[in-house]
Amino acid sequence: MSDTSGGDGPPLLALTRGDPSGIGPELALKAWLRMRGDPEAPPFLIAAGPGHLRALAKRLALDVPIEEIAGPDTAAAVFRRALPVLTLGHDVAGAPGVPDARDAPGTIASIETCVDLARSGQAGAVVTNPIAKDVLYRAGFPHPGHTEFLAELAERWTGARARAVMLLWSPELSVVPATIHIPLARVPETLTRELLVETGLIVARDLTRRFGVARARLAFTGLNPHAGEGGAMGREDIEIIAPALADLAAQGIAVSGPHPADTLFHAAARKTYDVVIAMYHDQALIPIKTIAFDSAVNVTLGLPFVRASPDHGTAFDIAGKGVANPASLIAALRLAGRLAAA
Amino acid sequence: MSDTSGGDGPPLLALTRGDPSGIGPELALKAWLRMRGDPEAPPFLIAAGPGHLRALAKRLALDVPIEEIAGPDTAAAVFRRALPVLTLGHDVAGAPGVPDARDAPGTIASIETCVDLARSGQAGAVVTNPIAKDVLYRAGFPHPGHTEFLAELAERWTGARARAVMLLWSPELSVVPATIHIPLARVPETLTRELLVETGLIVARDLTRRFGVARARLAFTGLNPHAGEGGAMGREDIEIIAPALADLAAQGIAVSGPHPADTLFHAAARKTYDVVIAMYHDQALIPIKTIAFDSAVNVTLGLPFVRASPDHGTAFDIAGKGVANPASLIAALRLAGRLAAA
Repeated sequence: MSDTSGGDGPPLLALTRGDPSGIGPELALKAWLRMRGDPEAPPFLIAAGPGHLRALAKRLALDVPIEEIAGPDTAAAVFRRALPVLTLGHDVAGAPGVPDARDAPGTIASIETCVDLARSGQAGAVVTNPIAKDVLYRAGFPHPGHTEFLAELAERWTGARARAVMLLWSPELSVVPATIHIPLARVPETLTRELLVETGLIVARDLTRRFGVARARLAFTGLNPHAGEGGAMGREDIEIIAPALADLAAQGIAVSGPHPADTLFHAAARKTYDVVIAMYHDQALIPIKTIAFDSAVNVTLGLPFVRASPDHGTAFDIAGKGVANPASLIAALRLAGRLAAA
Repeated sequence: MSDTSGGDGPPLLALTRGDPSGIGPELALKAWLRMRGDPEAPPFLIAAGPGHLRALAKRLALDVPIEEIAGPDTAAAVFRRALPVLTLGHDVAGAPGVPDARDAPGTIASIETCVDLARSGQAGAVVTNPIAKDVLYRAGFPHPGHTEFLAELAERWTGARARAVMLLWSPELSVVPATIHIPLARVPETLTRELLVETGLIVARDLTRRFGVARARLAFTGLNPHAGEGGAMGREDIEIIAPALADLAAQGIAVSGPHPADTLFHAAARKTYDVVIAMYHDQALIPIKTIAFDSAVNVTLGLPFVRASPDHGTAFDIAGKGVANPASLIAALRLAGRLAAA
């Protein structure tokens, strides 16, 4: 991997602005305040409007100097004295907590800019601030969500199909939901042997490639209570999940399961695997948000670059009030720096 | 409530034997060793065969004197020097880890005996050791499970329908799954407004009656990811859960929700309610077993007596080896004592 730090320090990260009416810009200011003095912390630039950030810092009484940079080369050096801003040519129309569809082009441009920096090797990883899908939809955004848009950018870049896989990482536990934002009633029909095999292969490969785990241990949950208890409570555990695990094992992947999901997440059980692949959203997100609410990071696997993001949304209800907690963004930046350096 | 202690001490508990080839009898011996010296701990008798318990204590080198009692009156006094055993007239055919259907009548008789003691006021609560449903089925047991059998005994006793509701209790979190041992695919069709209202009424009433919570705060999860996000990911949150909450609120119950399940169980969120009513098994059991694996207690609400049990099964794989952890049984006994005294 090319040197992206401009020196011996940690690699430079490219942070997107996110929806400017959400808490993302505030979190970026707070993250800079907490990270600038730490030589181990990865420096980051943000692709945003400097005027908007300056006004926000003033409004929140955050002592954050904003410095426009012409390109990423100087970002790491600037980072020690000011927040480096790669200027977007888009004004901000919305106010804190009041999103405006006219800001959608800037939100999208910020993502494209940061992915371009990763593509060219000028940034070691992309970290994304939260966007509001419905705001983008109103402006004609054709992608289902943030991650699908990043996969599309990756496909434009590589010419190959990108299957993005969401990993929720925390120091205590990492989880991958095999299905995500669909109604619970649709989970059983959506789960297929092929989906689980493809997911397992991507997770195993990227835990090695990105996280440096030599041979990742993947623990799969069952779909049904007690993993179906031998078929007494549902057949998917036997007919879909177990065959997928056999396929993965035949390809040399270290898998276990399907495990009863309720007994898979306590402290002793967590020592027996590197990641849990869960069958649906709440099965994966309940345990990690229960034990690591502020420190969970969303990492997108399956892309040709490292992408991390905080594990929360735009939080329009608290935007502009100065109360947003930057812990998850800081955790995302630190993890992205670690992965970019790997 | 009648005095069930034979004196000024805590109320007497009636402990069932459970499957004699499982870990229940071993846990009873270990629980006695840890509780006998604590004057605050509730004394308990066990309805079992004294010969079987003596042989097991010898096998496991546990220094537990076994004392047969003719009735519950002397149990509390005996408890300080020996484990009081109300003798069952059933020999044990199975071996540790090797269950035998010929032991089913004794397993059932032990449950009936303990419920009779609660009915007559001679015991303040029933605590049940684990049974193996398939072993009982082989012997013709006609009930779906332990709890349904207890409800049937309650109905015989009161003449009124008993709707048993499973509460998982721990010092940190209490949860009620609105549906339990059914395939995940059947959860959406099983959830009804009526089911949720009935469940909420029983939980609210018994948290007051049994746990002494003046006005219990019930937090309901949503069924779908993000509680459906306004209907974008499933309609049940809007069409079933929300109307049930309105019905309960109209009856004066303190309810909130439907909440996104993944953000409902971290430490700060847990301060906002007394109990979570979750929509299905894993949604309720994942969080409590993640944070309170050894100390969770199963309490059956909706019955005319207090019933608690450890939150694990027969564990035939480790039975007879001396390694079973009595923490959950001890937690169940202590909680049952507290509830019986209330």
